[in-house]
Amino acid sequence: MFDYKLLSALAAVIEQAGFERAAQVLGLSQSAISQRIKLLEARVGQPVLVRANPPSPTDVGRRLLNHVQQVRLLERDLQRQVPALDAEGMPERLRIALNADSLATWWAGAVGEFCADQQVLLDLVVEDQEVGLKRMRAGEVAACLCGSERPVAGARSLLLGAMRYRALASPAFMARYFPAGFAAARLSRTPALVFGPDDFLQHRYLASLGIQDGFLHHLCPSSEGFLRMTEAGLGWGLVPELQVRDQLASGRLVEISADKPIDVPLYWHHWRNGGQLLGQLTDHLRLTAGQWLVPL
Amino acid sequence: MFDYKLLSALAAVIEQAGFERAAQVLGLSQSAISQRIKLLEARVGQPVLVRANPPSPTDVGRRLLNHVQQVRLLERDLQRQVPALDAEGMPERLRIALNADSLATWWAGAVGEFCADQQVLLDLVVEDQEVGLKRMRAGEVAACLCGSERPVAGARSLLLGAMRYRALASPAFMARYFPAGFAAARLSRTPALVFGPDDFLQHRYLASLGIQDGFLHHLCPSSEGFLRMTEAGLGWGLVPELQVRDQLASGRLVEISADKPIDVPLYWHHWRNGGQLLGQLTDHLRLTAGQWLVPL
Repeated sequence: MFDYKLLSALAAVIEQAGFERAAQVLGLSQSAISQRIKLLEARVGQPVLVRANPPSPTDVGRRLLNHVQQVRLLERDLQRQVPALDAEGMPERLRIALNADSLATWWAGAVGEFCADQQVLLDLVVEDQEVGLKRMRAGEVAACLCGSERPVAGARSLLLGAMRYRALASPAFMARYFPAGFAAARLSRTPALVFGPDDFLQHRYLASLGIQDGFLHHLCPSSEGFLRMTEAGLGWGLVPELQVRDQLASGRLVEISADKPIDVPLYWHHWRNGGQLLGQLTDHLRLTAGQWLVPL
Repeated sequence: MFDYKLLSALAAVIEQAGFERAAQVLGLSQSAISQRIKLLEARVGQPVLVRANPPSPTDVGRRLLNHVQQVRLLERDLQRQVPALDAEGMPERLRIALNADSLATWWAGAVGEFCADQQVLLDLVVEDQEVGLKRMRAGEVAACLCGSERPVAGARSLLLGAMRYRALASPAFMARYFPAGFAAARLSRTPALVFGPDDFLQHRYLASLGIQDGFLHHLCPSSEGFLRMTEAGLGWGLVPELQVRDQLASGRLVEISADKPIDVPLYWHHWRNGGQLLGQLTDHLRLTAGQWLVPL
């Protein structure tokens, strides 16, 4: 079997973002941590860490970390049956990739109590779906929440529901660019907001109005920034309905055209052999996500 | 002089995230765009684009794009004096790196009207300060908003004020982890929220209470996600005061300990030869940022 003393030294250095903190957490000296890392590198035959501040894993280091995470999830299950096996006594960590809009809206409400009750710490990674699934495939995350259905090898996917987006702008924006009322034909010469190069929601909305051209846009890679820029009248854009209930009720934001929502499905991808904790989180999401997502 | 037909084809392919849209925007065929890119690569002697979907610039491509952006800013100034010089008629783009918390709070309110009046489109990049300044140095962004004072070569920096952070948690979180009232000594065994490996605010807060150990934490690289997770009782964390006025007033979030804010300075870094538009934006920020930031 692997030498888990070496592997947990590696995990501690990454999770604590440094040798000093890793040593504190494991109750070892810093030189003991350094020696374990060096020994691990001698066995693997290549570096496992990039010595920067904070240290980051090399490719092979990342694979080892992933293995440590999987083993810990399995250990957690065993510990339920055979308590007091674990000497470190650290709460479990789950590394999950998810889309920015879920994290900005319903995610915390959905998992808050679960994480507190189960004493689990989350390492969240914000990624668009392509990169999120690539990380699943590389084993860097245990689960991924994204718009794509097809599971990667070794994983399952589960449809949780859809996020509903509405094309919104501020009343001042509408007055400036559409003084005579909304006209689809003018939309491509009116500044839009786009999250990033992989965000095609605004393109889809324009296509649904029969507009295929390029269009003027700001780029704003932040969910809350996107909303603030919409409120400040910088552009129109598709915003999750969950995020703007107050703004729609108070009239601070308005739909640019008649009721034309876009529903984006959300799939939960999770490792098949992710252990009981990941299975419980999956069941929990299956049961609760409907409070925030619409059926597809 | 350079051949700007070739350079603006490159800029259009990147800004429009594809050859097809670039062709539409420039009123050319797709094959004309391809030929211009190939000709440009023949002149430069190396690829300027990574042919992916969407295309991305190579290192040398990025340097060319930066040059195009600088030239456009200078052209814009000239155009004021000699109108109708520009055949493309596209609004100006400014590429700016800024910290996530500014984008999630005061940025849009501060620049909204300015951008609408000046017809400028923003390409925003969210980066922590080290990377933001590295991008300034590489000429990839025209300006950068970050916590570091020292300007890179060719740029100036200006102190705009400070963002005030408060250590907050939900009442349910406090009841769960501090049933007998707050005790600093227990804080390192109480889950915290940390934005990412470069976020040391929570460490600074703990150090101010005399706690030097590592501590339990979730990682959540999203300003709004961070706030949602605090509200949902997943952890305590340092949140910009600007973002939580309602939550503090209504009692949905409380300060974990007595009044102990942390003020983080914000510096505006901008190219010295960035043209009039960048100069005006700088003046505008100098005059208005005090509405949101506290004096340092």
